[in-house]
Order: sequence, then structure tokens, then C-alpha cells
Amino acid sequence: MSASENPVRQEHPYSGDPVFDLHVGGKMGIRSAVELAGAEELSLAYTPGVARVCEAIAEHPELTQHYTWVPNTVAVVTDGTAVLGLGDIGPAAAMPVMEGKAVLFKQFGNVDAIPICLATTDVDEIVETVVRMAPSFGGINLEDISAPRCFEIEQRLKDRLDIPVFHDDQHGTAVVALAALKNALKLTGRPAETTRVVISGAGAAGVAVTRIMLEAGIRDIAVVDRQGVLNSERSDLTQVKRDLARDTADNFGRSGSLADVMKGADVYIGVSGGTVPEEIVATMADDAIIFGLANPTPEVHPDVAHRHARVVATGRSDFPNQINNVLAFPGIFRGAFDVHATAITEGMKLAAAEALAALVGDELSEQLVIPSPFDPRVGPAVAAAVSAAARRDGVARIVD
Amino acid sequence: MSASENPVRQEHPYSGDPVFDLHVGGKMGIRSAVELAGAEELSLAYTPGVARVCEAIAEHPELTQHYTWVPNTVAVVTDGTAVLGLGDIGPAAAMPVMEGKAVLFKQFGNVDAIPICLATTDVDEIVETVVRMAPSFGGINLEDISAPRCFEIEQRLKDRLDIPVFHDDQHGTAVVALAALKNALKLTGRPAETTRVVISGAGAAGVAVTRIMLEAGIRDIAVVDRQGVLNSERSDLTQVKRDLARDTADNFGRSGSLADVMKGADVYIGVSGGTVPEEIVATMADDAIIFGLANPTPEVHPDVAHRHARVVATGRSDFPNQINNVLAFPGIFRGAFDVHATAITEGMKLAAAEALAALVGDELSEQLVIPSPFDPRVGPAVAAAVSAAARRDGVARIVD
Repeated sequence: MSASENPVRQEHPYSGDPVFDLHVGGKMGIRSAVELAGAEELSLAYTPGVARVCEAIAEHPELTQHYTWVPNTVAVVTDGTAVLGLGDIGPAAAMPVMEGKAVLFKQFGNVDAIPICLATTDVDEIVETVVRMAPSFGGINLEDISAPRCFEIEQRLKDRLDIPVFHDDQHGTAVVALAALKNALKLTGRPAETTRVVISGAGAAGVAVTRIMLEAGIRDIAVVDRQGVLNSERSDLTQVKRDLARDTADNFGRSGSLADVMKGADVYIGVSGGTVPEEIVATMADDAIIFGLANPTPEVHPDVAHRHARVVATGRSDFPNQINNVLAFPGIFRGAFDVHATAITEGMKLAAAEALAALVGDELSEQLVIPSPFDPRVGPAVAAAVSAAARRDGVARIVD
Repeated sequence: MSASENPVRQEHPYSGDPVFDLHVGGKMGIRSAVELAGAEELSLAYTPGVARVCEAIAEHPELTQHYTWVPNTVAVVTDGTAVLGLGDIGPAAAMPVMEGKAVLFKQFGNVDAIPICLATTDVDEIVETVVRMAPSFGGINLEDISAPRCFEIEQRLKDRLDIPVFHDDQHGTAVVALAALKNALKLTGRPAETTRVVISGAGAAGVAVTRIMLEAGIRDIAVVDRQGVLNSERSDLTQVKRDLARDTADNFGRSGSLADVMKGADVYIGVSGGTVPEEIVATMADDAIIFGLANPTPEVHPDVAHRHARVVATGRSDFPNQINNVLAFPGIFRGAFDVHATAITEGMKLAAAEALAALVGDELSEQLVIPSPFDPRVGPAVAAAVSAAARRDGVARIVD
């Protein structure tokens, strides 16, 4: 590209708009942890002193964990194909979201996060690129990569890397939704085993929410996509959806449309966008639980939901019970990094959900099934639970 | 890898050693530029506000330059094959050097640098990986990649990317050496056109030093590798060395060994390691100029050099006239970034050398041909010269 293409003006064009003003120059930077006041400091932090640190790591690779920033650093990796509700806007336009994520990682988990926006959407290329970069990072947070590619990318990276790999759109959402659901079930006196759940959406979040619910002991789940309930009678399913059908609706003979399975359902979890008509919402069981997580427009508006349900949650900050990933990912990586974990296990995710749910404690009510993102207890509580689970699951590398 | 391999101890094993103590936890971190005190700030810096910034960039990609940290960010990319004097120690062990580089970028240029240590040494894979990561960065600083691979990697990246690509081991060294040589020639009253130069070493630094000297008007150069002077009579040369021979020794009929070309030479520049015997040094012209840049052991020790030369420089901080890359790379990237340059041109490098040399001014003496790395005027002076050269060379994207 020649310099005359895409010239850059001195003044930014949206000056005066608070959102754009806040973004000028980006939302993050690098901080030096050492001050180089003169030649002596330079000779410690850089040549010739640094050579001894390099030699020590070359001989004992685990010393990376002591003498570099790597073990506190996560790459926030995207290809820009599924950014917020905007869809495939490409890597450059995804950067403000990735920077925002990095800011949240720092503020809520003291994790150093580096946005990596990739100029490829090819699964093989993404996997190879991340594997090659991996010595630079203590963990990989996949972000805003469209389904079903995100499932394969995550699995292949987990297989090849000995550091945590975590697709936040899946597992962050799943952990927080499970935490809120645990408290909602407690409030409405339902045992997990007999609760009837409908999950609308079989993308990244829908699949992960379903999986963590199954692991948490919920059995009667119907997952619904645009064509209806996922079950093995359907011939149009991807492998991921076939596996999901076998573990959910098949076991209880659920089939048909969203309207069919909503009749008498205890729980509705929307991670799909779109709107559920009120006459369908009205057919749910008494004391129903409705989580409409699409942003900015929940699948069931809280005003509608409250006419038919006892517990209502959304993804929005302007209603009670916000299901916000920031409740999970900073503490999960903090907890993993604190014990130099080699992976994030299912046990660590369940422990994070349990810790989040427990923070509500005696304050549990219809208006409070999940803590606020700004509750200062959240990050430390999640981290401690995740570290303990990592030790239990044998993925903690720290020894005393 | 299972967690039981490479366990990490709570205490670091070299506790009490000042170099290792300084490295605990690494030398850098991420800094948030925005404070998220509550839901309102969160809604500006993250969802839903951030979506508008993403949409604006998707429509007008040049807005990346205003609303992200990308235009101030450089990837410091290595494969760990030629780290300091340690050689091929791999990507993990290279990290302390890359962090040190990032600290220098920040302190001396206010550039945000991210170390990227790659788990591949394959030229194609390195090129593809960097191209895919490129939307995340405003520039690429290649570091400690062995020759001759470094030449091809740099050239291919320059061809494919519209951001500055700069191999510091080549061009940083070259810029600072040229600056020091300009002042040394001035001091000894030599015109560039008739000065006889010997350059020992035809690796990354040797090639780049030779190229910039040629561009600066020096003509009579003999480049020497382990087999002797590079000229077209030799059949053992790589393409890079053949090109160099054609532009140097061929034009003046230089041939033979280092000892042969040192007889009567005005300037010796060592970028090779090893030691030049004193009896060879003694054969140089009167008022000779000797730069022994190998670290920690210069090719000609200053005590020896001073017996036969008038101007002596090394790469070390404990002797006068330190040829240190930190005099160049922070200001070069600062100057390139200030005008959103799409490349670093030869003109920008020459301008950097000129600005560095000019800073010495009236203080010019045998003991001062190059400023100190801690002279606060260095970074701003280099940056201003580089920005101006970028505008002259048509690679500045900024418009008023």
C-alpha cells in the first residue's frame, strides 16, 4: 500500500463523541517494571546481565515461569468473524473489543492480556499461528471466532499446547450462566436432576452452556436452533450438534419447535438473538426462570419475562442479574496462572461457577442470583476456587 | 505435557543474585489507559459503546490509527536463533532479551513493544505467522534471527506489509556505526569518498553496516568473512555475499586475507567476534579509526587499539564511544509512528544517523564521537529526523 492510500488526519473525525474520545490512542499500553536510570541498570536488565538469565532458561525451561512476564500473560486471539453482535467485521475492526477485553483482564484479574487480531479465518492457519506464537504467552483466550470453527480451533490448540486455552464466548458465558442458574434453582426449590431446561441457540455459547449444565447434573435439556429441537431424527445437524442431541433431547424424547418444548419448561436460556413471543413464554411452568442473554436486545424483554417468570436475568447492566463474562474470565485466568496451570479443566470451570454462586449467599433473591461485576470479592473468589480445582485436577505445576 | 513435568517452585532458585532478582515476574506488564469505575465507564470502553468504534473502523480502516493502540505498537519478533552472543537458544530462552528490548522501546521512545518469540525457525512459517499477526501491530522489529535467513525474512515482510519492518541487528547497528563514523571522519579530516574501510563480518550486522556506508558515500570497502575478503573471484559465496562483493572489493581489486586489506586501511569495523592480532592492527594508516563492536569482547581491545588508532569505539558501556543500538531503534520507530509511516526507508535510516552524529556538535573529540544512550536529546532528535525523512520519501500517511 502506498502512503497516499488511507491517509490519516491529525484530528480524529468523531471528536466530541464520548465513546470515540475515550478510544483515542487506544485503551492500553506497555508498562516497564524496571527503571533504567543509567548504565548499571541497563547492564542488569539488558546486556550483558540478561545473558545469564537466558542461559538459565535455555538449560531449565521452567525458569520461564520465574524470570519472564510469560506466566502472567494471555493472548486474546480473534479472527474478527463473530464480534459482539456485529458478525464478521475482520481483524482490524475487532481490535477495540480485544483492547477492552485486555483492560478487563487487567482491572479484574491483574492479568496482562495482549490483543492478537489475525488476518486469516482458516482453521489450520489460525491453529498453526497460535502454536508458533505460544512460547510468548502463559495462556490463550480465544475471542469472537464464529461457530463451528471455534470448537475445532479450541480443541486442536488444547491438544497441542501445555498452557490454558479458553474460548471465552463459550466458557465464560457458560460459567456465569451456570452460577446464576444454580442460585435460581435454589431460590425456586428445584433439584437439578428433574429441572426441564430449554436452551435457544446452538452456537458457541449455546453449546458450552449446554455442556456445563450437563456436567452440573442437569439432565432434561432441549437445545433449539432455527430449525427446532436438536435431536437425532434430524438429518441436517453438524457433528457438534449431533453430539449435543444425543446428550440432551434424545434422552427425553424431546422434539418439535421451540413452542413445543417451552410448554411446561422450568428454565429458558436464550443465547441466540431473536424474540420469543409472549404467548410462548406464557406456557412455561410456574416459578419459571428466564435468562435472555442476547445483547442489546434480550430474547425475552424483562418486562415481558416478569409477567410469567419468577427469576429473570439478561446480559445487560441496566437490569438486575447481569450475566456478564467479566465475572468469570479474569478470575479463571488469575487462578490458573497463580498455580502455573497447564490447562483449564471442566473442574476448574465448575469451581468458578460454584464460587460465583456462593458469593450471593444470604442475599439471594429474585433480584440477586449473580453478583455485580463490580463486587470486589468476585475476582479473588473465582481465582481461589480455580487454583484449588487445578491442584485437584492435577494441572497445577506449582510445588511448595 | 503433564503438570508433573517441569514443576515450578514457589521460590526462585537464584534468589539473592541481583540480575535474577531484577527479572522475577518479568520486566514489563500491561497498563490500562482507561479506568472502569462502574457500569457507565464499562459501557463506553466495552459493550455496548465499543461496537460503534468497531463499526467505524470496519467502514474506514484508517480509523485504526486513531482509536486503537495499534499505531504505537511494535512486535519484537524473534525465533531465538541468534540471541546476543549466545547463538541458537530457542524462543523461550530469548524472552528476557525481548522484554529488555521492549523496556528500552518504552523508556527511550514511548513505543509499546510486545515480545513475540516464535516456535519455528522456518523462513516461510515465520513470514506467514508475522503477516497473519500484522493487523495487531503498527510495526515489526525483527530481532536476533540468524543470517542469512534474516535477510529473506525481512525482505519478504517488507514486500507484503504496509507497516514498518526493521531488523534491528542489521539496521540499528548500521545507523549508530555510521553516525560514529561520520564524526570520526570529521575529526580525522577524511572525505568519505577516499576513505578505505575494512568490515570484518558478513552476517546481519556486517551486511547492513556495509550497505549503509555505501549509501553514505563511502566507496572503498573490503568486507571480510572467515575465508577472507568477499570478492567475485570466490566461489563459496551466498547470494547476499556475492551482491556485497560486487558493490565493494570488486571495484577496488581488494582480495586476500584480513591482514592483506588491513595494511594501510583507514577504518576497521568489527562485527564478527574473534580477535585481530596487534601486529595486524599496527599496519593500519595513521590516525586510524577502530570500531570493535563484538560484545563482551571487542575484536580489538581498546587498550591495544589506542596504541595504533586515533578514534576507538566499542559496544561496551565501560569504554568511551559506545555503539549501542538503543541510540537508534526507539527514535526510529517513534519517528515512523509519529507520521504513521508505511515503511522505514533508507532515507529514514540515513537521517537517523545524521541526527545522532549532529548531537555531538562542538564537543566532538576522540573520546566523544557518539552521544551517550542516556542523553535525553537522542530519542527526540532521531524521531524528528526520521519523521521528516518519511515525509520526504512519501511513506508518511499523516495529513494536516
